[in-house]
Amino acid sequence: MVPRDAVVLLSGGLDSTTTLGLVIREGWTAHALSIDYGQRQREELRRAERIAADLGAAEHRILRVDLGTLGGSALTTDTPVPKHREEIGSDIPITYVPARNTIFLSLALAWAEVLGARDLFLGANALDYSGYPDCRPDYLAAFERLANLATRAGVEADRPWFRVHAPLMQLTKADIVRKAVALGIDLSNTLSCYDPGEGGVPCGACDACRLRAKGFEEAGMRDPAR
Amino acid sequence: MVPRDAVVLLSGGLDSTTTLGLVIREGWTAHALSIDYGQRQREELRRAERIAADLGAAEHRILRVDLGTLGGSALTTDTPVPKHREEIGSDIPITYVPARNTIFLSLALAWAEVLGARDLFLGANALDYSGYPDCRPDYLAAFERLANLATRAGVEADRPWFRVHAPLMQLTKADIVRKAVALGIDLSNTLSCYDPGEGGVPCGACDACRLRAKGFEEAGMRDPAR
Repeated sequence: MVPRDAVVLLSGGLDSTTTLGLVIREGWTAHALSIDYGQRQREELRRAERIAADLGAAEHRILRVDLGTLGGSALTTDTPVPKHREEIGSDIPITYVPARNTIFLSLALAWAEVLGARDLFLGANALDYSGYPDCRPDYLAAFERLANLATRAGVEADRPWFRVHAPLMQLTKADIVRKAVALGIDLSNTLSCYDPGEGGVPCGACDACRLRAKGFEEAGMRDPAR
Repeated sequence: MVPRDAVVLLSGGLDSTTTLGLVIREGWTAHALSIDYGQRQREELRRAERIAADLGAAEHRILRVDLGTLGGSALTTDTPVPKHREEIGSDIPITYVPARNTIFLSLALAWAEVLGARDLFLGANALDYSGYPDCRPDYLAAFERLANLATRAGVEADRPWFRVHAPLMQLTKADIVRKAVALGIDLSNTLSCYDPGEGGVPCGACDACRLRAKGFEEAGMRDPAR
């Protein structure tokens, strides 16, 4: 198969940046998509823009969806982000944003259909993750099935058209760090923190910071963003 | 079952207005949701607001998603809306908006999860319709399945949680008109036209206008919006 156009969801964190780097290294023409969903943490959108340019995405778009007005998550409201949680991954935390990946993948699907692309990539992974339901393999398989029923391109094709790829799904954070470093993907502008300080300084204590630190530690590498 | 909270997608057209009216008549607490997706046709959002208030929705929200910047549809770009088409329903027309119902249902799902609601309603119907893939029963069944995999509420429930209801699915436009009139649902502010003139005057020639006119004609009723 000759790689062609792909839509890649890019939050500006470690996982989505590694995914975008992988996709570009494989020869795809990458259309990077970031979503401004009213996240308190605005720095990640600036990072995403810079990362897309640095890695060589063909283009980068930021689409706005005002999920913040719906509430329901510590990432879009004034609810404090939990720090130093014991039980990362064993429950669904307050940083869960209702239906977020479904909304993001739907927007990626719409853009892919307009572009004539059939491949959607995202950085979801189910090991060393925060426990979100919309990062699991059966969820992504169900979205892929839906995508082919939902669209003109899916209906008009004589075989399943859209594909949802989560190349990091079965990797640990340490694996992801190793893979990014092995491929020469620059992680220095990535921002994983749910609750960064001025200019994007990571808090070091939220789930995302702690999973990231564990990943670099287990990989025996220094985090270039620190 | 005691009806409770429901999220109802409301475009301000005949079908979604009838759906909202039905839901309210059945005793649900209706949370009406309209999406400002960059449609050229802005009047429908004003109509939706008025209809939600008149029918007695508990609340009405308009969420913004800028699909217009993605292009791909006559409803969000300067591409002319086709008039007097012969073959309504036999193909997917240029008024198709890529992944629109998937995006809309995802937003409805997010709001439902925040509200603690489990029921989503939309006015999709598969008879006398414009041929959109994301209005068919198997599409909606796939979305319902996805919703239960995608969400905290779906995962934490011990049985399928979210339900997607399309009560008009198997009705003709004439059936829908009859049902609305029988239930006393005021259709005078509804706007179906894809390309209305100043103040929402229907063009009379697009697929939506012609399907609507056919429905009123077959039901032997006068369109109160004319």
